[in-house]
Amino acid sequence: MQVTPEIPAAHDKLLFTPGPLTTSATVKQAMLRDVGSWHSDFNALVADVRFRLLRLAGLTRREGWEAILLQGSGTFGVESVFQTCVPPDGRVVVLANGAYGERMAQMLKHARIVHRVLRSAEDAPVDVAALESCLAGDPAVTHVAVVHCETTTGLLNPIDSIGRVVKRFGKAYVVDAMSSFGGMPIDIQACGIDFLVSSSNKCIEGVPGFSFVICRRAALLSCEGWARSLSLDLLGQLKGFEKDGKFRYTPPTHVILAFDQALRELELEGGVPARHERYRRNHQTLLAGMQRLGFQPYLNPSLQSSIITAFLHPPIGRFDFDRFYTELSRRGFIIYPGKLTQMDTFRIANIGRLFSADMEQLVAAIGSVLSQMCHE
Amino acid sequence: MQVTPEIPAAHDKLLFTPGPLTTSATVKQAMLRDVGSWHSDFNALVADVRFRLLRLAGLTRREGWEAILLQGSGTFGVESVFQTCVPPDGRVVVLANGAYGERMAQMLKHARIVHRVLRSAEDAPVDVAALESCLAGDPAVTHVAVVHCETTTGLLNPIDSIGRVVKRFGKAYVVDAMSSFGGMPIDIQACGIDFLVSSSNKCIEGVPGFSFVICRRAALLSCEGWARSLSLDLLGQLKGFEKDGKFRYTPPTHVILAFDQALRELELEGGVPARHERYRRNHQTLLAGMQRLGFQPYLNPSLQSSIITAFLHPPIGRFDFDRFYTELSRRGFIIYPGKLTQMDTFRIANIGRLFSADMEQLVAAIGSVLSQMCHE
Repeated sequence: MQVTPEIPAAHDKLLFTPGPLTTSATVKQAMLRDVGSWHSDFNALVADVRFRLLRLAGLTRREGWEAILLQGSGTFGVESVFQTCVPPDGRVVVLANGAYGERMAQMLKHARIVHRVLRSAEDAPVDVAALESCLAGDPAVTHVAVVHCETTTGLLNPIDSIGRVVKRFGKAYVVDAMSSFGGMPIDIQACGIDFLVSSSNKCIEGVPGFSFVICRRAALLSCEGWARSLSLDLLGQLKGFEKDGKFRYTPPTHVILAFDQALRELELEGGVPARHERYRRNHQTLLAGMQRLGFQPYLNPSLQSSIITAFLHPPIGRFDFDRFYTELSRRGFIIYPGKLTQMDTFRIANIGRLFSADMEQLVAAIGSVLSQMCHE
Repeated sequence: MQVTPEIPAAHDKLLFTPGPLTTSATVKQAMLRDVGSWHSDFNALVADVRFRLLRLAGLTRREGWEAILLQGSGTFGVESVFQTCVPPDGRVVVLANGAYGERMAQMLKHARIVHRVLRSAEDAPVDVAALESCLAGDPAVTHVAVVHCETTTGLLNPIDSIGRVVKRFGKAYVVDAMSSFGGMPIDIQACGIDFLVSSSNKCIEGVPGFSFVICRRAALLSCEGWARSLSLDLLGQLKGFEKDGKFRYTPPTHVILAFDQALRELELEGGVPARHERYRRNHQTLLAGMQRLGFQPYLNPSLQSSIITAFLHPPIGRFDFDRFYTELSRRGFIIYPGKLTQMDTFRIANIGRLFSADMEQLVAAIGSVLSQMCHE
């Protein structure tokens, strides 16, 4: 694959997308190795990665927490929680205000798990009061699930106030923190989260190939015999690690070597607070620049994460997004299309190995493309 | 990860394991890029990979075949077939003579799919006559599944004669060709195979991170509504590719770039016949050398593949495999432990970027370790 069919560019286009994202050269170079998945060195590395993931979350095994890696994309990780941890007569409430909340409902439908979806508008947080009356009215509910940063819009759902309600009713709490974990502080214990899911290619800035679940060990151990899938059996995966330190089935060794390096670079940067600050600055640079160009963000600022931002199409007659995308791509910048059902938007993420200067360059390129499109 | 804790070696240890395996430098270097999974260049590459996989199998889309990539290890691919393609009232017969046949039974158990396992000894091919009487006696059976090269031992099951029986009874035929596809000729049509599964890190010599299913399009399309898992919904995955050329969920972009390069190198080598010939020579070099050292292969030569070979522990008093493994590892050679239930064996694979000269070096190292162990 080349930047143009004819002449390769000096470097890859920058990805302003919510993963796969632009990673450091050193993260990719960590993949220039072939290691045996049965070998003790590799298994020590996997154990270390699991330990450092917990440390990043401010948790320890001694306090009863586990970090479990699972092959596949983030969706596989979220589904593994449902396929493994909901009992045969379990019932799940999904709070949804975007495509990723809806995806949870699709998973439950496929697994024939009884569920109810409490929907909110895509530009509003999920409805905690509706959850409260739902739980009060239906004692058979066993699990509540929500997406933290809904990548459809970049909206941050209030996982802390949701968690307080979930715990008051004594339910298990599943949070998809795919695009937020590692990029902003999350107090898993204070939120009452039992299962948090994220993946290798988001804010930890690795490459795609596995997801991970951070969970209360006791919550997972209580799910014996419920798994509806062997590959997605999260308890089986934990038991595999505990039996002999190995993945049950072939792990993506190269992707894990890259992740190990990515974790090291996150630690060097100053951990989650420093990374959050970089993303926050990226987001502010982007937002200020886009507003100067006349673009409006889709969300109310109070709901907006610093992970990804949805912008409305500008009011310049017929705005041709494909043309806009292609012209930006030609200049070396890859943005992300919208995913909203009701409004025409596009999205710009600022996670990955991106800095304020990159956001400024992107804004300049957008200005140039926009001016070109307006004057044709 | 270093070869010793102190000083990194000049190159990685050679992997005589059935995947992850030793790949070419150029395959790994193809991963030194970050590409967008939504971008047209990447999607064109995915379409090309799917096309070339079919071509490698001697099949075409025009004749009704599809190659579908799925995130996760090979196990995920095999399970996706069962989770998607067995109807709610379906019944599967598994022919098993090793750990990977047993794994199919585990998948079916997890998915609560009615199944029957026809077991044979680990050193004998699966029992075609038993299958015949089973199918004659139970018309409710819908699918028959078998492992082609049972990596437990290296045994090749007779997928052609099994296929004739399966087709005579009009059942769907699922073949796990994980460790054989690409490394030996398989006539999928002549064998009557409906679903064949393999993965990125076997005989095509890519790195681990996805599996692929080659299947009859009509057989897959008839499975609408049966999938028990969203992530493992093979029909959903096909529909995703057909809708807009994209993976439904984040693909392992780097692993796919490596696979594209691996396919190119397989084509350059002369395709499946040339690769099969290299593996056959590797196997012969290994076998001759090991027999010179007094090692006996576990299998009768008529059943043995040229993919992986199980050897009996040598009769030198107490043979300490861990010591043997560690000494070989210290010399830069990684072999594979046994997986047999009844006999003490270890395994040596000769797939990956390995040549006869590598097999000779391995044999020399084994001779040296053995002599050291005998004279202590």
